[in-house]
Amino acid sequence: MRTLIKHALRSTDPMEAITISGWVRTRRDSKDFSFLEMNDGSCLANIQCIADAGIPGYEDVQKMTTGAAVTVTGRLVESPGKRQKWEVHAAGIRLIGEAPADYPLQKKGHSPEFLRSIAHLRPRANLYGAVFRMRSRMAQAVHRFFSERDFTYVHTPVITESDCEGAGEMFRVTTLDPSSPEKLDFANDFFEKPTYLTVSGQLEGEAFATALSNIYTFGPTFRAENSHTSRHASEFWMIEPEMAFCDLEGDMDLAEEFTKYLVDDTLNNNEGDLDIFARFVDKGLIDRLRFVSEKPFQRISYTEAVEILGKSGKKFDFPVEWGVNLQSEHERYLTEEHFNCPVTVYNYPKSVKPFYMRTNEPDADGRETVTAMDLLVPGIGEIIGGAQREERIDVLKANMQAHNLSETDYGWYLDLRKYGTCPHAGFGMGFERMLMFATGMKNIRDVIPFARTPGSCEF
Amino acid sequence: MRTLIKHALRSTDPMEAITISGWVRTRRDSKDFSFLEMNDGSCLANIQCIADAGIPGYEDVQKMTTGAAVTVTGRLVESPGKRQKWEVHAAGIRLIGEAPADYPLQKKGHSPEFLRSIAHLRPRANLYGAVFRMRSRMAQAVHRFFSERDFTYVHTPVITESDCEGAGEMFRVTTLDPSSPEKLDFANDFFEKPTYLTVSGQLEGEAFATALSNIYTFGPTFRAENSHTSRHASEFWMIEPEMAFCDLEGDMDLAEEFTKYLVDDTLNNNEGDLDIFARFVDKGLIDRLRFVSEKPFQRISYTEAVEILGKSGKKFDFPVEWGVNLQSEHERYLTEEHFNCPVTVYNYPKSVKPFYMRTNEPDADGRETVTAMDLLVPGIGEIIGGAQREERIDVLKANMQAHNLSETDYGWYLDLRKYGTCPHAGFGMGFERMLMFATGMKNIRDVIPFARTPGSCEF
Repeated sequence: MRTLIKHALRSTDPMEAITISGWVRTRRDSKDFSFLEMNDGSCLANIQCIADAGIPGYEDVQKMTTGAAVTVTGRLVESPGKRQKWEVHAAGIRLIGEAPADYPLQKKGHSPEFLRSIAHLRPRANLYGAVFRMRSRMAQAVHRFFSERDFTYVHTPVITESDCEGAGEMFRVTTLDPSSPEKLDFANDFFEKPTYLTVSGQLEGEAFATALSNIYTFGPTFRAENSHTSRHASEFWMIEPEMAFCDLEGDMDLAEEFTKYLVDDTLNNNEGDLDIFARFVDKGLIDRLRFVSEKPFQRISYTEAVEILGKSGKKFDFPVEWGVNLQSEHERYLTEEHFNCPVTVYNYPKSVKPFYMRTNEPDADGRETVTAMDLLVPGIGEIIGGAQREERIDVLKANMQAHNLSETDYGWYLDLRKYGTCPHAGFGMGFERMLMFATGMKNIRDVIPFARTPGSCEF
Repeated sequence: MRTLIKHALRSTDPMEAITISGWVRTRRDSKDFSFLEMNDGSCLANIQCIADAGIPGYEDVQKMTTGAAVTVTGRLVESPGKRQKWEVHAAGIRLIGEAPADYPLQKKGHSPEFLRSIAHLRPRANLYGAVFRMRSRMAQAVHRFFSERDFTYVHTPVITESDCEGAGEMFRVTTLDPSSPEKLDFANDFFEKPTYLTVSGQLEGEAFATALSNIYTFGPTFRAENSHTSRHASEFWMIEPEMAFCDLEGDMDLAEEFTKYLVDDTLNNNEGDLDIFARFVDKGLIDRLRFVSEKPFQRISYTEAVEILGKSGKKFDFPVEWGVNLQSEHERYLTEEHFNCPVTVYNYPKSVKPFYMRTNEPDADGRETVTAMDLLVPGIGEIIGGAQREERIDVLKANMQAHNLSETDYGWYLDLRKYGTCPHAGFGMGFERMLMFATGMKNIRDVIPFARTPGSCEF
């Protein structure tokens, strides 16, 4: 029976019999024995195995090169070395799978670009193993957070006929054969009409919130946007809670609680993985996470934010005036310089936001805002965007008209307001963005197992 | 501050002040007061609210019809009725959103077909609310199971260039414009080549298992199969664990443990939802779940299964002989009649299985099998299919050739065998199939929030 290295290293007592299976990271030979540093991906740390010359299997030791799969049986004993508590004294070693000399992950640095080209081997590198363990723990923490709060997890559809944001930039899903152009009629397509990959599960989430009260989605979403930045991918995962009988304030409360929960979980249950990011990726990482964990969140209206930015004396690339959307430089000024804490900005100009957000009473100057909110954190800016939704059917219809959306296409969405409508609110968190914040990784391609970006869909 | 009905009903003490928000299921009026049965979707049960004539908001009571959204404030007191422990004595009631007389979910039975046509309102019906709460709890239980066992959750890609099963029947993902046929060149497509919706994350999962040891996926998968049965949907969720240094036996162990875990969780944490299925959907449901929870699982080889079926004396629609795939009628005979317990069948004929399964030594009669396994449960047949994978690169290449698969296309998959190959195994569970087993629901369209089937992609 195999023991994971993670469990072996955590052992409270020595073990008379242990079996370790994994891959060789490095090997050092002396005349009478060999040291093998073994890793099985269950944690960042290796376990050191000492194999004396002559034990069963030792005849293959020269083939146990970096990347080779090996099984070691022996005893778990206290290590005389300072770097680890336990090591394995091998009674037998067995070569399971060789790694020839052209194995790409030899012990030397590799560029992120090169490692993206071998995304199928990349999780065997220490840094990427840590990234994907962190990704897993954070995803599990998302489910724990909502499960503890009695939210119902809803699988909203990936293939959809509607465009939540009304913004276009969607992938089409089809079984039509492009080599037979005469047959390219949507009536012949699989769903007998044009269909797309979803950009958000929000609208369907609202249908479930207005039945089950508190729900969340957590699934893949898609943008066919031809943008080549380090922060955009064509396929990414999003978390979208939605709460019935909830207003903007309740929404902001949940967004802040959720962000803190994920950051605290990252700090407290990282099982050693955080070290590698703090050492090699971002020296300020732990401080920034503690900052979000410990500091109370500030809340200000968009109008207050514009005033603060106007009075700041800073010269921004994008000048600020009431009515424009906030840019990353503005968001960072608010969190990093002015308030020095995470900030939630609410009540944005109606003109810059989608049709489904709730319209506020005009302010004293007659300006129209909606109950949008963005949660900003240092170093990255917006990490959550949300809103209280427009629950008044007449106002919603007017908004849809202003956005050129058809009442027929959204008839089912209007039904949610026609029958037992209620105030409700929710938000979306881009999972990869949160993961980038928690690891310090700078490129979204490096926190997705197999990233999809314009012109790139490998593996 | 709102209290969920689920929490109110669980209260250990009366409460002097409580606020309930939800939707009216039924209302009865007498001269001096009204009874409102309120539901908020947090649980199957309603809470009864007694509103005396004349309390604030009572003037709207005639508008508080079935489906209307209402907020009740008052005291939580012991109920004199026998059906519930608690009820609310209202100090005030407030109409939040009316439900006009054409509200489709009036208190009468509706056909499943009709309810599918109003999938956006369907979760407000008792039965479907229960289905989707069960779905959520089971999904959360999946994550808990693997998290407790230190499996890493991997988000394998939805958009892919490869076809895991080599079986075709895939949706194409594109941004090409079908109205400009002259431009229909994949070189101009978003990813500069043909891309598809994934049918399985297994191959990518193997890449992560051979780096991190124990992993699982849980995400949407797709089949563009034109089949109109009650068990097929075009979009469904699948769970696929994969373990390095694991053989067929370890794989079967995990499959059985996982199945029992989900069934036990369904029995023990169903929060009252199971009742509605046992009463209205499937009277034998609880017995069948207990059966899987309590009985040890039987394991037999495919060859033994064929012998048992041959000797059964039963007349099957599909005659059984060595070399054919087992049909549902055969699977049900094994679990329901012969063994009367769940059965795992292993070592299937090589000719009926995909290229990536590990080839066994030929048997005494020279017949070739692979290390496939199917877990069968009563009432439904196969609920899990899995295999130990072919880790020997030469055998794998020969299998690929026999299946007309190109070594170039699968070069990265072969790399997993070239560098540090090791025995590994995994399986797939169709999440909806498990959910149908756990609820007794007979049509897959009724356990998916918004089902996608040929010709049907609404909402």
